[in-house]
Amino acid sequence: MTGIDFIVFKGSSDGKIVQSKTHKESIKSDEVLIKVTHAGLCGTDMHHRTSDIVLGHEGIGLVQQVGSQVTRFKVGDRAGWGYLHGSCGHCDECLNANEMFCPDRSIYAASNTDQGAFASHAVWKADFLYHIPDAISSSDAAPLMCAGATVFNAIYLYNIRPTDRVGVVGIGGLGHLAIQFAAKMGCEVVVFSGTESKREEAKSLGATEFYATKGASKLEIGRPIKHLLVTTSQLPDWNLFFPIMAPNAIIYPMTVSGENLSVPHRPLVSRGLGIQGSLCASRGVHVKMLRFAAIHGIKPITQEFPLTTEGIEEAMTELDKGEVRYRAVLVAEH
Amino acid sequence: MTGIDFIVFKGSSDGKIVQSKTHKESIKSDEVLIKVTHAGLCGTDMHHRTSDIVLGHEGIGLVQQVGSQVTRFKVGDRAGWGYLHGSCGHCDECLNANEMFCPDRSIYAASNTDQGAFASHAVWKADFLYHIPDAISSSDAAPLMCAGATVFNAIYLYNIRPTDRVGVVGIGGLGHLAIQFAAKMGCEVVVFSGTESKREEAKSLGATEFYATKGASKLEIGRPIKHLLVTTSQLPDWNLFFPIMAPNAIIYPMTVSGENLSVPHRPLVSRGLGIQGSLCASRGVHVKMLRFAAIHGIKPITQEFPLTTEGIEEAMTELDKGEVRYRAVLVAEH
Repeated sequence: MTGIDFIVFKGSSDGKIVQSKTHKESIKSDEVLIKVTHAGLCGTDMHHRTSDIVLGHEGIGLVQQVGSQVTRFKVGDRAGWGYLHGSCGHCDECLNANEMFCPDRSIYAASNTDQGAFASHAVWKADFLYHIPDAISSSDAAPLMCAGATVFNAIYLYNIRPTDRVGVVGIGGLGHLAIQFAAKMGCEVVVFSGTESKREEAKSLGATEFYATKGASKLEIGRPIKHLLVTTSQLPDWNLFFPIMAPNAIIYPMTVSGENLSVPHRPLVSRGLGIQGSLCASRGVHVKMLRFAAIHGIKPITQEFPLTTEGIEEAMTELDKGEVRYRAVLVAEH
Repeated sequence: MTGIDFIVFKGSSDGKIVQSKTHKESIKSDEVLIKVTHAGLCGTDMHHRTSDIVLGHEGIGLVQQVGSQVTRFKVGDRAGWGYLHGSCGHCDECLNANEMFCPDRSIYAASNTDQGAFASHAVWKADFLYHIPDAISSSDAAPLMCAGATVFNAIYLYNIRPTDRVGVVGIGGLGHLAIQFAAKMGCEVVVFSGTESKREEAKSLGATEFYATKGASKLEIGRPIKHLLVTTSQLPDWNLFFPIMAPNAIIYPMTVSGENLSVPHRPLVSRGLGIQGSLCASRGVHVKMLRFAAIHGIKPITQEFPLTTEGIEEAMTELDKGEVRYRAVLVAEH
């Protein structure tokens, strides 16, 4: 082959989306060339908007070429990928199926400087691509690659069990998927949202209870919450939520911030509360997430935009205003 | 019977220890009267020093009377008790062997206003008293009732497993027991102390590694820590400890404070770290702790003081200065 040129969309210092090009001389024997068809827009892309890197890490596309050693994919297959890639195969984390924490992941991370899902094409190692179940459309699959994997990981990997009373704070890209996953796993799902506007939608997604929190100085919810999934970009007022946590309850702050996370100390210790960080998923968990979503009909609610400079900027503007319900998906025009 | 008078030692508004008296008309059918022989001094007693309550919640004594329905104890048995008592028997927490969080515990808490371990006698429900294994002396048993139960609960109840690399920050009343329990449970125990002064003692208690942290701007410890037991009354500099935590590592802050607990947010989420509050133990765990300590020869290192106003004040002064190695035990003179 004579090399592959792709169009890519990057951030830039003034926050404008810039269309650019990347060239790969060839794909390696263990790699796959994908034509991107859909890409979800994640809050993390907003953080990278001013960086000179290719954006997008909720990618879905069609396989166009496979390297000589690739057996898991063939031309024409759908393939998806998420935020973290890379696995050395021999560190403690890799050996314990925890390869999302492999120190080598930075080598192969998406978004990285020259590849991402906001592009015409992408080249990745076959081992880090996921097959998309037939029951899930490509547009629905895209947000599952990061938002879906992130909430599923928190719900699946730690101590949440069916029958548990699980709180979800915020109904957005993460929250509207968390409600569905937790409900289908047999949890009692208690949703907290600023206003009443999303009450009916929360119920239709599987919430058993709904509380509007704006202006509340105290929450009255009956039996306390055993697990609290915090999906809002701003952390909530802990003085509102700590009193409704059950003993030994766990709080999962699922968005990141450069500030310190500050919680009341005494009730944390005296009531045995926990805080559990969680981000994305290792491959074994990601595959379970896709199967679970396919079997239980879990789908994001999406708004589509064209995968162009203008489309990305428009979707970002909507996301910034908090007006996306609930996940923007960029659709390739080619 | 014509009633029982006991001597008790209380806090007071100016921090002086006050000798006082309590009277019980009789014991109930499910209660036990204990003559106190030993009482450990806990950091929590220092918090209560200015309160008009009977201090002490690491009590050991001899049974002097049993109520008509009590079958688990007889006159002459040794009995011990810890900080939290009370169980309604029918709330969610009680039904799940988690009765240390029973909302009714306040009814029967030690220390409460008129009973505690700093006293000549105490009356408690038999169900909340522990038998002391023969292998453990009464003086050694006292600190196990709160300090021992607290560190064992954190190590046993959550996710620490044999083979795990466990850090212990601080070698004091809690820390010197945490090292022993974790080592005997098959963990690799990495101890962090301010200075070098306790290095040899840490090693003899079971530490596999020891690091002095005073003045350090970076810790170099090789493989990272999977669980970090923080036993110091002041929380450590997280910027020193977060970089040595393994992915998905858990931090256990085991002392309480009225301030907020503030930790770096981004690495917590991106590296899947957890914070787990833990305090004392429910009865099932407390009993396991005593058996484990007896079988494995786990003993506190104690300093004895007389169970008198002067003895308590002297022990408190030593504890305040950080000079107790490692737990003060008050011994009754009667």
